[in-house]
Amino acid sequence: MNEEAPRTPEEAPPAVDADTMVGISPEIVARIRGAVEAGSLDRVEEIAQELHAADFADLLQELTPEERRLVIAVARHVIDPETLNHLDDAMRTEVIELMGPREFAQAVTELETDDAVEILGDLDEDDTRRILEAMPAEDRAVLEQGLTYPEDSAGRLMQRDLVALPRHWTVGEAIDYLRAKDDLPKDFYDLFIVDPMHKPIGQVPLSRAIRNRRTVKLTDIMDVEFRAIPAEMDQESAAHLFRQYGIVSAPVVDESGRLLGVITVDDVVHVIEEEAEEDLLGIVGVSETDFHAPVGETAWRRVRWLVVTLCNSAIAATVISQFEATIEQIVALAVLMPIVAAMGGNAGVQVITVTIRALATRDLQPRGSAVRRLILKELLVGAINGIVFAAIVGTVAGFWFGSAALGAVLAGAMIFNMVWAGMAGTIIPITLARLGIDPATGAGPFLTTTTDVLGFFSFLGLATLFLL
Amino acid sequence: MNEEAPRTPEEAPPAVDADTMVGISPEIVARIRGAVEAGSLDRVEEIAQELHAADFADLLQELTPEERRLVIAVARHVIDPETLNHLDDAMRTEVIELMGPREFAQAVTELETDDAVEILGDLDEDDTRRILEAMPAEDRAVLEQGLTYPEDSAGRLMQRDLVALPRHWTVGEAIDYLRAKDDLPKDFYDLFIVDPMHKPIGQVPLSRAIRNRRTVKLTDIMDVEFRAIPAEMDQESAAHLFRQYGIVSAPVVDESGRLLGVITVDDVVHVIEEEAEEDLLGIVGVSETDFHAPVGETAWRRVRWLVVTLCNSAIAATVISQFEATIEQIVALAVLMPIVAAMGGNAGVQVITVTIRALATRDLQPRGSAVRRLILKELLVGAINGIVFAAIVGTVAGFWFGSAALGAVLAGAMIFNMVWAGMAGTIIPITLARLGIDPATGAGPFLTTTTDVLGFFSFLGLATLFLL
Repeated sequence: MNEEAPRTPEEAPPAVDADTMVGISPEIVARIRGAVEAGSLDRVEEIAQELHAADFADLLQELTPEERRLVIAVARHVIDPETLNHLDDAMRTEVIELMGPREFAQAVTELETDDAVEILGDLDEDDTRRILEAMPAEDRAVLEQGLTYPEDSAGRLMQRDLVALPRHWTVGEAIDYLRAKDDLPKDFYDLFIVDPMHKPIGQVPLSRAIRNRRTVKLTDIMDVEFRAIPAEMDQESAAHLFRQYGIVSAPVVDESGRLLGVITVDDVVHVIEEEAEEDLLGIVGVSETDFHAPVGETAWRRVRWLVVTLCNSAIAATVISQFEATIEQIVALAVLMPIVAAMGGNAGVQVITVTIRALATRDLQPRGSAVRRLILKELLVGAINGIVFAAIVGTVAGFWFGSAALGAVLAGAMIFNMVWAGMAGTIIPITLARLGIDPATGAGPFLTTTTDVLGFFSFLGLATLFLL
Repeated sequence: MNEEAPRTPEEAPPAVDADTMVGISPEIVARIRGAVEAGSLDRVEEIAQELHAADFADLLQELTPEERRLVIAVARHVIDPETLNHLDDAMRTEVIELMGPREFAQAVTELETDDAVEILGDLDEDDTRRILEAMPAEDRAVLEQGLTYPEDSAGRLMQRDLVALPRHWTVGEAIDYLRAKDDLPKDFYDLFIVDPMHKPIGQVPLSRAIRNRRTVKLTDIMDVEFRAIPAEMDQESAAHLFRQYGIVSAPVVDESGRLLGVITVDDVVHVIEEEAEEDLLGIVGVSETDFHAPVGETAWRRVRWLVVTLCNSAIAATVISQFEATIEQIVALAVLMPIVAAMGGNAGVQVITVTIRALATRDLQPRGSAVRRLILKELLVGAINGIVFAAIVGTVAGFWFGSAALGAVLAGAMIFNMVWAGMAGTIIPITLARLGIDPATGAGPFLTTTTDVLGFFSFLGLATLFLL
């Protein structure tokens, strides 16, 4: 790194193309494919070594299983261990098997503790034990301790390496210490000041430490309003803390308040993204993204929600079958009934989505004072849109089938179903949240079952009462 | 800040309750409500002043409009300007009106440039001009320049204050400069090294600067593999760059490569979250979260997607109406047809969601080599699950209505619809992405229209051919 970048003012600016700056370019994929086909293994190894871990992970995911096998066989000694963190679960399992336990254990010990713990936590118990046994005792102890924290807790997110300094030190002493010590974390953003019991009493952002004179005491410039995160805290709550208060790094403490580790914002970025994605996937009924999973596994993972859908529509079919005699006399009902169900379902999914996101971002507390106001609001929104659309649809249907009564029945059922959608769309997720169940999982299909069933029932029921 | 935190080892650890650590507690809401009701305005001001900006924003959102008006009237001189950034759009407009233009302009000048530009960019042009005119010329110039970058671009995200140092400096010179200078950003994580044309040639993480001796040259320890972000780059691409490479802060450059500003990871956290949320809301048909919007506005915002739903179901109804004669003879068709539509729709939404997320996270390139593989995979998944569920449902329906032929027709239509769902669920979003249209918007409703129409058509059509 001793040479300066040979850029001169005359040099043309780099091409500005967003997509080529991020991720793996088709050219690199083509280059490695070419090298694989030509059997030039040195070339494969060379390309693999040049890539950033995240890009190498993307590359592996782009390749076919056969190509992947060869690339890993060739490059396994030079793979950046961080590659493992950038692979998704299905792909990581495949890569771990291709690497073999020895290389894999070696790679894991080179990772930061939070990354290593995350990977081990995803393996099954036997594999985890085998990998841990292949490691030096010291590394093993740290990782075993990390694995004792519950899944998705702050303890799992935290990095053990940090800079903790005694309260009586000055800026100068801190700088001298940092210059002399060589097993510090690669990057850090805050100095943590601890008392003799190793409890954090404040933190000093690096930019503040570097701007103060050597004689200044750390306790004079530290933030005492920092937020210590309990290791047992749920990772989503920890992420929310970072987002709410714009935190870059925060200390993690045990039950007695002693400093255990540090969580940095880059760990939190993934949690926040996962959280929003889980809401999305939960509402539509995909348990986790199965983009890289093989065909059989993907089909199997989606079965659960298809079974739910099947049960839902079987219930709806049963409701319809109660009105077979009515439909036989007025076939127009069969033509119009999907409209009632679809409008209620769509309106309800809109409500439930807004409610679930408000719960996830803590804009809505499940037991807060805003709950009643929200339910009332959504009832009103449902009623307003229900009346407007019912008037339109009822009129059109009345003319279409030449029956004002049919139009009125359709309008009545539609208003009823859309008011219900507003109410159910708020009450279902809030109730799930109060019971401690993740409202994103299952609320969507459960809601549309109710709007289907009530839509068919109210429309066909009203028709039986008034049109026969 | 001269006194040490008075914590002793005997002191009990702080209570560990995740929910009370984040956001505004019901007790504070109750306290401010009490103060408002009792008319003790000093108390209101005091509570408002104590709160973190993010918490104060949450508080405002919890209050009724009348309470909010009073709290802002009382506290408008002591409100932390950052509060504005934590409010959502609807609420911010309300608060800005309550504050009045003078106080608002004053608050905006106190914000960091990226935050100020974000708020001004959301206002309409007249308001923006009025606010800008109420500012000192220097602040105005910086903000006006920020507003020239396109919405949702990296230029809008960037902070103008940064630390840029010449290439010949040493660590010691940098530290002396930082200690002497007083208009530096409040927090910074990297030192940017620039050439005489003010183009960035490397960056030094603060933790590395502080660990090196005073005599070390900055160019000897700088990262030259940093990623300079063009100001015109789309903010989603910039966010993806941060996420992919674990960046904490990155320089933003103009077309000729000169350093303009810096983007830090905390800005990116919001972009990443917004991006995932937009996907979610787009798929279910809510244009943006309307949690805090008033009833009338919420109803209006949802109309667009209800109209889409209505058109979709009207098309489906038209298809059904072509088969009235068939349904009149076999009413069981009306009972069973929602099952075919629901299974296809659900399977399709699963596929489309996975595809949209893969596009958003750049796991899938719209023109990449993985496209054909994905379509083939989803076709297979649809066929497998289609055959399995068709066998079950066909058998049950056959026994229920005592007609093997009816069961076979149902099974055939279901397989056809689920294979279609797999194909359409991949092809629709990929095509939209290729055309440069955000695949999250509209793909969901468009897909379910096709599964409804094809579901009804294939089921009723097969029934007409084989059962009459």
